[in-house]
Amino acid sequence: MQELIQYIKTHGEALDQNVLKVDAFLNHQIEPVLMDHIGQAFMQHFKNHKITKVVTIETSGIAPAVFTALHFNVPLVFLKKNVSRIHNQHLYHTTVHSYTKDIDYELSCNHKYLSADDSILFIDDFLANGEACLGAIDIIRQSGASLSGIGIVIEKSFQPGRDILTKKGYEPYSLARIASLDKGQITFL
Amino acid sequence: MQELIQYIKTHGEALDQNVLKVDAFLNHQIEPVLMDHIGQAFMQHFKNHKITKVVTIETSGIAPAVFTALHFNVPLVFLKKNVSRIHNQHLYHTTVHSYTKDIDYELSCNHKYLSADDSILFIDDFLANGEACLGAIDIIRQSGASLSGIGIVIEKSFQPGRDILTKKGYEPYSLARIASLDKGQITFL
Repeated sequence: MQELIQYIKTHGEALDQNVLKVDAFLNHQIEPVLMDHIGQAFMQHFKNHKITKVVTIETSGIAPAVFTALHFNVPLVFLKKNVSRIHNQHLYHTTVHSYTKDIDYELSCNHKYLSADDSILFIDDFLANGEACLGAIDIIRQSGASLSGIGIVIEKSFQPGRDILTKKGYEPYSLARIASLDKGQITFL
Repeated sequence: MQELIQYIKTHGEALDQNVLKVDAFLNHQIEPVLMDHIGQAFMQHFKNHKITKVVTIETSGIAPAVFTALHFNVPLVFLKKNVSRIHNQHLYHTTVHSYTKDIDYELSCNHKYLSADDSILFIDDFLANGEACLGAIDIIRQSGASLSGIGIVIEKSFQPGRDILTKKGYEPYSLARIASLDKGQITFL
């Protein structure tokens, strides 16, 4: 997606060879017109998948995902992130290990908002090691819903997320794919 | 806003006399068309205030605020919530006490995304005791920006937030005002 790539080139910062900071338009300050275009791009790609719900993870997934949901005219459900383990019979939950931050956290979703009738498009801001995505897939599986697509705003293709997902039979669709962040340079695939 | 009031009547739950749960369309599942209409309503009300940025607090403020920012065609900045105190010379920060949860948390914002040239519309999902709003006002004051409006999706008018803000000279604009949640009944002002 050329507009997104241009934003990354102009405003993105390669903090080191693994970390791309996009606080200027996605993770702290948000450009709403870009988010609307991202939502349109996901709708175009997945329009034949009979999506009934969009799912994302709080916090930074919400802005691109809510526009995607708008263009599909379906609800968005965001999975909640908690540091502590929740024991609640009304929740689907799973534990995710973040390699980036070296912590475990819990993802959860109320039973009410996902069901076996749903065809889900999962949207997230980044794909890196794939752990958050696998957590979301686990929650969706517990609910009995079908996972009909995975849409990623920025994929760090030099990290193993895509390979891990592909080996499990999923095919993420990414709007921007980063080949490398070496020497402070952002190189696209 | 009649459409929002209808959503609250149909999907809101008065868990006790202080807690209104709107997980069905705002705080867990999100109805994007409603969010778009909320953004339009805030734009209509504040359209003469020369807004240059919309500010909100993660997580639940993001969806209504990003549509408000879209309708003004300005960026959204969301303030980050942290349990621990951050010492970073590049951040504005303030401590907020949540009466609801009886915890302190830290709000922060990178210096880059608020400046003395900005005219800010602050948007939040709820106004209850006013502590989050006062925290956001403190961050905006530190940046030198002008606070040109406060837009609230749901105001619990039986709690002291509005009075506290009014006494400090602010005039929040709320799309739905709840008079009482007694006996499981949601009564509007």
